[in-house]
Amino acid sequence: MEERKYLDSAQQSSAIGDMDPESFRIYGHQVVDWIADYLGHVGDYPVLAQSAPGDIRQALPDRPPVQPESMETILDDFERIIMPGITHWNSPGFLAYFGITGSGPGILGEMLSGALNVNAMLWRTSPAATELEQVTLDWLRQMLGLPHPLFGVINDTASSGVLYALAAAREALPLHIRQQGIAGRTDVPRLRYYASQEAHSSVDKAGIVLGVGQEGLRKIGVDSEYRMDVGQLEQAIREDIAEGWQPFAVVATVGTTSTTSVDPVPQIADICERYGLWLHVDGAYGGSAAVDPAMRWTMAGCERADTMIVNPHKWLFTPIDCSVFYTRKPDVVKAAFSLVPEYLRNTESTGEEVPNLMDYGTSLGRRFRSLKLWMIMRYFGQEGLAARIREHVRLAQLFARWVDEASAFERLAPTPFSTVCFRAHPSGMDDESKLEALNEGIMNHINAQGRFFLSHTKLNGIYTIRVAIGNLRTTETDIRDLWVELQTCLKDISYRQS
Amino acid sequence: MEERKYLDSAQQSSAIGDMDPESFRIYGHQVVDWIADYLGHVGDYPVLAQSAPGDIRQALPDRPPVQPESMETILDDFERIIMPGITHWNSPGFLAYFGITGSGPGILGEMLSGALNVNAMLWRTSPAATELEQVTLDWLRQMLGLPHPLFGVINDTASSGVLYALAAAREALPLHIRQQGIAGRTDVPRLRYYASQEAHSSVDKAGIVLGVGQEGLRKIGVDSEYRMDVGQLEQAIREDIAEGWQPFAVVATVGTTSTTSVDPVPQIADICERYGLWLHVDGAYGGSAAVDPAMRWTMAGCERADTMIVNPHKWLFTPIDCSVFYTRKPDVVKAAFSLVPEYLRNTESTGEEVPNLMDYGTSLGRRFRSLKLWMIMRYFGQEGLAARIREHVRLAQLFARWVDEASAFERLAPTPFSTVCFRAHPSGMDDESKLEALNEGIMNHINAQGRFFLSHTKLNGIYTIRVAIGNLRTTETDIRDLWVELQTCLKDISYRQS
Repeated sequence: MEERKYLDSAQQSSAIGDMDPESFRIYGHQVVDWIADYLGHVGDYPVLAQSAPGDIRQALPDRPPVQPESMETILDDFERIIMPGITHWNSPGFLAYFGITGSGPGILGEMLSGALNVNAMLWRTSPAATELEQVTLDWLRQMLGLPHPLFGVINDTASSGVLYALAAAREALPLHIRQQGIAGRTDVPRLRYYASQEAHSSVDKAGIVLGVGQEGLRKIGVDSEYRMDVGQLEQAIREDIAEGWQPFAVVATVGTTSTTSVDPVPQIADICERYGLWLHVDGAYGGSAAVDPAMRWTMAGCERADTMIVNPHKWLFTPIDCSVFYTRKPDVVKAAFSLVPEYLRNTESTGEEVPNLMDYGTSLGRRFRSLKLWMIMRYFGQEGLAARIREHVRLAQLFARWVDEASAFERLAPTPFSTVCFRAHPSGMDDESKLEALNEGIMNHINAQGRFFLSHTKLNGIYTIRVAIGNLRTTETDIRDLWVELQTCLKDISYRQS
Repeated sequence: MEERKYLDSAQQSSAIGDMDPESFRIYGHQVVDWIADYLGHVGDYPVLAQSAPGDIRQALPDRPPVQPESMETILDDFERIIMPGITHWNSPGFLAYFGITGSGPGILGEMLSGALNVNAMLWRTSPAATELEQVTLDWLRQMLGLPHPLFGVINDTASSGVLYALAAAREALPLHIRQQGIAGRTDVPRLRYYASQEAHSSVDKAGIVLGVGQEGLRKIGVDSEYRMDVGQLEQAIREDIAEGWQPFAVVATVGTTSTTSVDPVPQIADICERYGLWLHVDGAYGGSAAVDPAMRWTMAGCERADTMIVNPHKWLFTPIDCSVFYTRKPDVVKAAFSLVPEYLRNTESTGEEVPNLMDYGTSLGRRFRSLKLWMIMRYFGQEGLAARIREHVRLAQLFARWVDEASAFERLAPTPFSTVCFRAHPSGMDDESKLEALNEGIMNHINAQGRFFLSHTKLNGIYTIRVAIGNLRTTETDIRDLWVELQTCLKDISYRQS
């Protein structure tokens, strides 16, 4: 049993209030100092937590604390027990999945949001939260070069966003689905939507939830650069119509998860127009890049999307969660979701003059997420954000060139953004299962070293290592060191195998 | 144009990294001091923001910032522009909807989560985040007196939770719904689920999203204490079966939104067993009360629920968002949602030995929400949490007694928790439309005064004022002052009308 340390006034036996403000000030300063030290040395930790399943659980008591414990003890335990089990997403060596950053101004924003603790469900439950959300998303719209007007709302994740988008698309069918549902009705055909085989798994999940089912999603093949094949798309739609399916939406991706490929949105938009389908664009990762005018080409056609997602928590340096949902058809989204019980009715915000943001999705409770985004936009400015995107793209292009120039490595996909897909492929080794074992071995070895964390995907069945640059602390030195480590690792493994 | 103030090193023209740690330290200390001052004086602000629609928007520039702005300017603008539009959920006078608290230890937890910025989607993407989530939810299970084992996972809101619960319930039907969907199938009947007419609007929304439709939710009447009438429930199920509907779930509520009534869960569980229906319990508000052993009766029957929700962000002093989802059938929930693409596969966490929490819902991205809950549980201890719940219940009972004893007021529902439903009802005034105008007038007048924020509901068509006590700063003095203000207000309005 730990020795009991100092308990503040709110922890005495008769106390019933919150921690007193002066105690908060003391602990808050300690935590800020800890965070500043952490941010200054985050690169010193192993990026991928090196703990084994159950380690953290076993270090914690089975039974809940009955009596108050001192904040000193709690913060000590955080450092001693929790920290060894943390994978450091804020590390310069985090290059897995998509690299992200909880930037300084973003953390300050989270601190203020946590303290205010407002719920932005209705305009009146915090006018500033609702209006700042509208303003920051209009700023972001301008930064991305998208036309006015565009209605924006912040969700937790793109997974929620694509669910809301497809729910709206389904609601746009003249079938009274909100009221009558889609089960057991002879007047509702089987519903189908389309996405490329490279689309994110959340696109599949949305269909499952909506009752469209996995069979309701038809996956469309891709070209050699992993972009949706629009010829196949149109043929699939025609076939489905002929077979009695009701097509209702297409999901295009700007920056797919595996290779960051960009679907041909203008041509997909043409097809959607031709067949009356809802166009949703998943720009969760790639969308942010358009903040840099040089990357604006990636948004071609997106101005025609019915709904679109851009995740500032992916590549605009915003602490998770913050996923922006844009729509040109807010009335349809609202028609799919709005439901105002008496206890939420009020005269100030009926949804006419100012929106009640709860009306545009399922979650009633909504954190004050726009505050951190606003602080980040102002702290860096559009030019600062663009410079950082540009630098990440530059580092990725540099790394891609090294891969291309190396005889024992090969690039496996184009690199339109800041993510490089490649593998080791020593000359003479052409057995695919051996190549997979080699590359998996290299990746696991690097991840075990602790300096870097990489993840993989499969492209046409080929095991592919990804280097995804998105953390503000990642420098050219990191990338160079990674490249050296990869080569060393390949040599070591090849030596052991020979 | 504002004069440009000091820009730190990360804001210089050639900079590409994050705010440097020493600048973060400086601003972080400023923000902590601001928060400490705020928490010490939160009662001095008007609780309900007194701004008009558009005020905040108009005070902000139409166009995004191109160049970096100093953190000093940003924090000044936060104070000057944002704060006047904040409704103060952390105020002792916040008695609307459900009173909540972003407590000191919870804010410290949010600060650390923001800095670590981990995504708890897979075990490996932060073992500590996954395992701490399991440990804290097992601690909470014990605090609530629920039997082992119970699988827990944290979502953003109860709205997501009920959607996941009903998706699992639907998946439990032997209809291959995940794969084949429910549209256009002759072998799928119309689906129905049940909840009382007092259930939360998120229960309706879940059915809309799932494609069950609003007609798929049959609302069951309540008894004189606003509890689901189980006789009516069983009759409805029988009728529906006879008419060819497929019943699949019942949602019971422990602490309804309007009156905090507690549905008879044991009897509802009997019916669910008899008809093979999934039982979901919405204890978003009421569930937390069971931390106090004196309130443990409210959880009767909940050990038989298939899924249940308790929101620590409602009445366990946790900053939003933090909604706990418990299930006795994690395999069914996982069967409804799990979908692991190649880029998320890994050998450390296949979901067997340790869970990957992304498998239990739609959202892939998941904040490190357990950290704040863990800090709160340890800082207050179970006894400290129970004492605070007990005090809120005591204050509500006190207020309820005053209402009962006053000739010009009447209570409109029982007060099992900390929420009082009542209205002014001067003797001789029996015209319902006049009574509604009177009570709406009283409530709006009090909300305009700024010391308190109340909200309303309707009970059997009767306009009802609610006083919902849940903030740790709310004291008996506040409640006494509110009672005086209500009486004064009634007199003033009656005087003006006479």
